[in-house]
Amino acid sequence: MKKKSLFTLLALGLSAVHAGEVPPAPNGLELPEGYRDWRIISISHRIDNHTLRMILGNDIAIEAARKGQTNPWPDGAILGKVVWKEKPEDHWKKAIAPDRFVHAEFMYKDSKRFADNGTGWGWARWVGREQKPYGKGPNFAQECIACHTPVKGQDWVFTRPALMP
Amino acid sequence: MKKKSLFTLLALGLSAVHAGEVPPAPNGLELPEGYRDWRIISISHRIDNHTLRMILGNDIAIEAARKGQTNPWPDGAILGKVVWKEKPEDHWKKAIAPDRFVHAEFMYKDSKRFADNGTGWGWARWVGREQKPYGKGPNFAQECIACHTPVKGQDWVFTRPALMP
Repeated sequence: MKKKSLFTLLALGLSAVHAGEVPPAPNGLELPEGYRDWRIISISHRIDNHTLRMILGNDIAIEAARKGQTNPWPDGAILGKVVWKEKPEDHWKKAIAPDRFVHAEFMYKDSKRFADNGTGWGWARWVGREQKPYGKGPNFAQECIACHTPVKGQDWVFTRPALMP
Repeated sequence: MKKKSLFTLLALGLSAVHAGEVPPAPNGLELPEGYRDWRIISISHRIDNHTLRMILGNDIAIEAARKGQTNPWPDGAILGKVVWKEKPEDHWKKAIAPDRFVHAEFMYKDSKRFADNGTGWGWARWVGREQKPYGKGPNFAQECIACHTPVKGQDWVFTRPALMP
C-alpha cells in the first residue's frame, strides 16, 4: 500500500513536470506539449560539433513536408530539433549514435505573429534534461536568426524532409 | 471534370500501393502498414557505409523503450530502421543529411512464433522506393541474424533508445 502511494506520488510528480512546469522561453514561447510523440521529418549529424539531431514536426508540419509545401511552411507548423552528443555504438564502432541529451529547439511558423522579427517564425530552445530556457531577454532569437540566414531563401529552415516510401 | 477524374484515378492508384501492393518478404512477413507514422526510438550515422538511419517503433516498442523494458523487448514490438545515403547539407556542409532512400528493414518480436530461428524475432527488408522484398528463399534472414550476433546479449538489437525529456 505504501509502495503504491509512493509510486502514485512519483507519477503525479512526473506528469506535473510535463503539464507545464517547464518555464517559457524569454520571448514567451512555451515548450510544445507532447513533442516527444511527434513524427519525424529528417535527421542530421553535425560533424563540426559532434552532435546527432532528429528533426520532428507537429501534424501541420508533417502534412506540409509530405506534400512538399515547405517554401513557405504553412502557419501553424512547428519544427523541433532534438540534439544529442555523439558516441560510437557499443557493438558497431563505425555507427555513430546519440549519447548525452543536449537540448531541444523549436521554430513556430506564424507569418503575422512573428512578422516583426523579419522571419515569420518564433524561435525557442530548452537546454538539458532540466529543460532550462535558453537566452537572455526577449530578443535572444536574433542569435538563432543570424545562424539561419544562409537558408533565408528556403523559409529559414535548413532541413529538407527525408521522405519514406 | 476530366481533371478531377484523373486526380481521382491517381489518388486511387497511390492508395492501392499503400494498402498492400508491396509484396511480402520471402519468409512471409508483411511490410508494417503505417510505419511512416511511427514515433522515433533513435538515429544513427554509419560512417563505414555512408548511410543515415532512423530507428522507429510501433506503439508497443515505443512504450517499452520509454519504460526501459528492452532486454527482452516485449512480444508485439516492431522496430523499423529506415536508411538513406548521406550527403552534406546544402547550406551547412558540416551537417550530414539524408540523400537517396536505400531501404527500410524491420524486426518483429514474437518469442513463440520466431523461436525456431533462435532469436525470437522475425526479420524483413524492402529495398528502394519500389519496396522490393530483400532476400532469396525463406531462410534469407540468417544473413540478418549473423550481422546482429554481436548484440545477442541485448535481445539482438543494436539500438539503445535516445530518450527526450
